[in-house]
Amino acid sequence: MTEPTRTLVKNLSALEAGPVVVSGWVDTVRDQKKVQFVVLRDESGAVQLVNPRTDETEAISEAISGLAQGSFITVTGELKHDERVKLGGIEVKLTSLEVVTAAIPETPIAPDSGVDKRMDWRFLDLRRPEQNLVFRVQTTLEHAWRTYWVEHDFIEIHTPKLMASASESRAELFEVDYFEGKAYLAQSPQFFKQMAQPAGFGKVFEVGPAFRADPSFTSRHATEFTSVDAEISWIDSHEDVMQLHEELMVAGLRAVKEKHGDEIKALFDVDIEVPSQPFPRIPLAEAKRIVAENGYVVPREDADMDPEGERRIAAYVKETYGHDFVFLTDYDSSIRPFYHMRHEGDGSLTNSYDLIYNGVEISTGAQREHRVEVLVEQAKEKGLDPEELEFYLDFFRYGVPPHGGFGMGLSRVLMLMLHQTNLREVVYLFRGPTRLTP
Amino acid sequence: MTEPTRTLVKNLSALEAGPVVVSGWVDTVRDQKKVQFVVLRDESGAVQLVNPRTDETEAISEAISGLAQGSFITVTGELKHDERVKLGGIEVKLTSLEVVTAAIPETPIAPDSGVDKRMDWRFLDLRRPEQNLVFRVQTTLEHAWRTYWVEHDFIEIHTPKLMASASESRAELFEVDYFEGKAYLAQSPQFFKQMAQPAGFGKVFEVGPAFRADPSFTSRHATEFTSVDAEISWIDSHEDVMQLHEELMVAGLRAVKEKHGDEIKALFDVDIEVPSQPFPRIPLAEAKRIVAENGYVVPREDADMDPEGERRIAAYVKETYGHDFVFLTDYDSSIRPFYHMRHEGDGSLTNSYDLIYNGVEISTGAQREHRVEVLVEQAKEKGLDPEELEFYLDFFRYGVPPHGGFGMGLSRVLMLMLHQTNLREVVYLFRGPTRLTP
Repeated sequence: MTEPTRTLVKNLSALEAGPVVVSGWVDTVRDQKKVQFVVLRDESGAVQLVNPRTDETEAISEAISGLAQGSFITVTGELKHDERVKLGGIEVKLTSLEVVTAAIPETPIAPDSGVDKRMDWRFLDLRRPEQNLVFRVQTTLEHAWRTYWVEHDFIEIHTPKLMASASESRAELFEVDYFEGKAYLAQSPQFFKQMAQPAGFGKVFEVGPAFRADPSFTSRHATEFTSVDAEISWIDSHEDVMQLHEELMVAGLRAVKEKHGDEIKALFDVDIEVPSQPFPRIPLAEAKRIVAENGYVVPREDADMDPEGERRIAAYVKETYGHDFVFLTDYDSSIRPFYHMRHEGDGSLTNSYDLIYNGVEISTGAQREHRVEVLVEQAKEKGLDPEELEFYLDFFRYGVPPHGGFGMGLSRVLMLMLHQTNLREVVYLFRGPTRLTP
Repeated sequence: MTEPTRTLVKNLSALEAGPVVVSGWVDTVRDQKKVQFVVLRDESGAVQLVNPRTDETEAISEAISGLAQGSFITVTGELKHDERVKLGGIEVKLTSLEVVTAAIPETPIAPDSGVDKRMDWRFLDLRRPEQNLVFRVQTTLEHAWRTYWVEHDFIEIHTPKLMASASESRAELFEVDYFEGKAYLAQSPQFFKQMAQPAGFGKVFEVGPAFRADPSFTSRHATEFTSVDAEISWIDSHEDVMQLHEELMVAGLRAVKEKHGDEIKALFDVDIEVPSQPFPRIPLAEAKRIVAENGYVVPREDADMDPEGERRIAAYVKETYGHDFVFLTDYDSSIRPFYHMRHEGDGSLTNSYDLIYNGVEISTGAQREHRVEVLVEQAKEKGLDPEELEFYLDFFRYGVPPHGGFGMGLSRVLMLMLHQTNLREVVYLFRGPTRLTP
């Protein structure tokens, strides 16, 4: 006798009536006098199981009466198509039920539990269909990006996360005991993806973790996050990087809309929009002027935008151009890292941009300074010690092409795409100053 | 006037004779009395530039005479097809040459420099066509795997690398200063990819870094490596994991052979073979018996294989079955982690395997123990404190399907595929006990 094979719930409705095997977990039980109903959920969907109480079905009836929500079960039964069944128009009349792993009857979280409590029990929280969808969307998004890169001859790199020095700011650096010495966790793959340029790799990408010892507790910061990075050779300016960037966003959103558009609408009430190209571009100074004219003077001492300013310029762009994205360009040198290239003839501005999506910054991109003597000057000006940067400066001493790229927070993109307000909802396992488990 | 666009070297031979722009770095210069030759290399290949010395070309002649190897240049010239030119049957007769970034004339490494010296200058070492090919092969391999996963409804996860406790062995753990407390770097995504099972994700994959504080200096260990992981629900035994695993290896090798087979043959003198399915499976005890019969008694006190034993059993399999791969199965419980499921009725053996490729282990896979009371017993038996594992044990208390998976070292696969003997040759930036730079 061959064992019957499991059918995924999503594939049931295409089958003719007849015997099936389904495996998944118990979502709900309705234990009535004459008939019992179980909603079983698996990774692909939910289906109604039915068991009329008769003498013959007594064993199954007892098993169902004892079922704890969340238990994983395997059932066999007769698939029936019945339009009156709200859940997909099908049900399975049980012939056997095996409890594979019983759950503790008390579920520690409820759908209305706060986000911190739900994080404690993330593996249960992730069973919600909305949560499952988030990560299927993530999968599709990343695969669309990587497919774009591979089709355009990019090389995938995995840069080390253990470093001998800081790549961004000393202030937000995690220190590691490294045998007899110290190492640091990479805050970004910045230096190492740039290394691919003198290495002659041309165009590279990486999707991997980055670490910031940022003690803040905002809804959009994490101490560990997935960084999406690209870096390309032979650019003329940051405009080339922005063109790459918008093509990627279009490819990603098109794939997500195609594969998950209906489900996203149903579960998040969000219409995924594939943006038109080119995305609007507004120099930062002009953006601040526009925002000020509309009644909001950014309350910062430095030249930067603030989150409220980003929201407002995005609202302006949406109203004026009907666009969800905007590149804010040409940031002041004073608020950009030393490795951003500055304007020719005006050192106060950089060849850089931030990409704003639905009102929040998701990425920073720039042309990099590749002239080593200029780079050393800019590092000194930022108070950095060129000696600590020697290994990085060497990348520019043996020939290097003009280049640029961007780094983007994967979960930020997901959060804004699905109109979520907290990063924790779209991260598999969030890490913050007081959150290291599960 | 529109600026002429750069053509990649690999696309030149398909063009008709005429004006072209090429950018790349100087590979070699032959500065002769009557004519000068430069071999220019870019990310796609190499091409010969030619400059007959005349009064008209004096400026270019002088520039070429002063060219340092490694400098990045942009040239314009006339493309000519000429069968006598060994390098691809084409050359470019220069009309202009711009040095974009001059290299320091003294190159710190030579092709015959030792591997440590070359690691010091990895960005120059990576310019070698063999090295460039390694990472294009890596890109193709990973994309083939991910495409397989995506087409088979796997969900991509990014598990945290910062943990509150050890996931494998306490001995090889890196400790991180984490605000007022301590964190540890994940030695594998083991616990977190298993968490996807009670979460109802069904099938998951991850490609990401893992960290081992291993002080050894072998040719195949690193303190940071890229781990390729998959974990699937509702398996009957490790056999299901092995089937997934061999399908992935076939998909990966087929893609690599198709896209890079000729180049790998030319640069590494290796014929990429797409393996037949199923791969041979040999229980570990039998493998040790076979090896012993052939004259090698594994000199270990425990039940494990050693590298020489793996080489020998692989040689036996190659000779007997003509296969480059072999699954060694059913390892002793004594040499497997507590989370491996043991045989029903014989607790001394596990539902596990190692995958050997060209004589070296590249992966460990297993069915996981999902019965929490058994898991606790096995943890205690291994000397672990269940209290420290509470967050992990909770994954099994609220319902979980039977599951299993594998973890595989990306660079090991590349090393063995390309017949390299040192991991350092196929890692973008190697990390070892005394190697944190560049």
